[in-house]
Amino acid sequence: MTKDLPVAVVLCGSGRADGSEITEAVSTLIHLSRAGLSFRCFAPNEPQAEVVNHVTGKPVHEHRNMMVEAARIARGDISPLSELHEPNFSSLVFPGGFGAAKNLCTFAKDGPGCTVHKDVDRVLREFHAKKKPIGLICIAPVLAAKVLGTTSGGPGCQVTIGHDAGAANAIAAMGAHNVPRAVTEALVDEAHRIVTTPAYMCDAKPHEVFDGIGELVTALKRLLRA
Amino acid sequence: MTKDLPVAVVLCGSGRADGSEITEAVSTLIHLSRAGLSFRCFAPNEPQAEVVNHVTGKPVHEHRNMMVEAARIARGDISPLSELHEPNFSSLVFPGGFGAAKNLCTFAKDGPGCTVHKDVDRVLREFHAKKKPIGLICIAPVLAAKVLGTTSGGPGCQVTIGHDAGAANAIAAMGAHNVPRAVTEALVDEAHRIVTTPAYMCDAKPHEVFDGIGELVTALKRLLRA
Repeated sequence: MTKDLPVAVVLCGSGRADGSEITEAVSTLIHLSRAGLSFRCFAPNEPQAEVVNHVTGKPVHEHRNMMVEAARIARGDISPLSELHEPNFSSLVFPGGFGAAKNLCTFAKDGPGCTVHKDVDRVLREFHAKKKPIGLICIAPVLAAKVLGTTSGGPGCQVTIGHDAGAANAIAAMGAHNVPRAVTEALVDEAHRIVTTPAYMCDAKPHEVFDGIGELVTALKRLLRA
Repeated sequence: MTKDLPVAVVLCGSGRADGSEITEAVSTLIHLSRAGLSFRCFAPNEPQAEVVNHVTGKPVHEHRNMMVEAARIARGDISPLSELHEPNFSSLVFPGGFGAAKNLCTFAKDGPGCTVHKDVDRVLREFHAKKKPIGLICIAPVLAAKVLGTTSGGPGCQVTIGHDAGAANAIAAMGAHNVPRAVTEALVDEAHRIVTTPAYMCDAKPHEVFDGIGELVTALKRLLRA
């Protein structure tokens, strides 16, 4: 049964400013674990777009690999994103962090005209084509907006990136729709089988981000059974 | 009131093999946040003992700073451990990870004869002298065993590092006592005001580690009110 396959979690480093946001990624794994949904972590086996000193917030002249850094979150249990094969997984989850907008696509510098990492583009289209649920957290919904916003023929998908007007306009420019939601809520687009939660797009406390991701995992599990 | 001061959380990098275990550190911050206990993260502003590639598990020739890496977990909000002043904080929590046994002391290579980082030794003695609660997770209880095991005059403190016989013998050799506990449990030494939970010293799932740290935070909050 598809619903009994593991969930694929796509990371892209370890740290809010240049990779996957750590609290969001860990909260995802904790909630999947509690829900009895097995999972496997993936990341591109390629250099990060940049490395940022998280004390100063400034880029540094250093090179780090997205998968090697994400392995810190995954406790070593991770595979290259190029090896993520849709038939082996029930669903797909993308935690946020600037890495989602710097490494997995170029949204951070190019906005709505961004390009998307080829394996990210591939897996989003493959899972969507098989009607497998897709969860996206924080800024990661821009990936679905860009890749799936206008591909379905009908109206673009609905996502939430919270109350940020600039990001909402960018989502609209890519053919999708932002529906404002609070940090502790998840938005479900039943038609597109996409679940999103704003997480640190909001000025939030750690337990609120954790709870919103809990709502996302609960909705994902319901879609898996539906 | 002392109980209304923030909790000081001591990190030492970001990653199970060379720094703070990420799931344990994040779980600590989420539970403190939910409990309404404000917190501040600290780490030594010094190089890690080593840098480990978390895919291969092998050390690499690279230098990273404990505080700069821990800032990835703390979202930039972190201070040097040398600036941690006991009068400004209610209590102290040390998440685990090999960093606690490589960076904060030399237990990983020296066992019971280890030396402890001077600021770690200082803050443990200062908080203990003021009867402020101290929480230690995973392998971090070796820090309390080494520093406080025989300093109190009376019997050494009780801690749990789970069911690992080798680590239990080492704890005993330092003048403290290991009391086996499951991953979802916390051990409270009421006399010494020390709370411990084994976390990834056990072969555990992420939500079990999260729940054990929840028990630790609940016990810490109770001690703060007692």
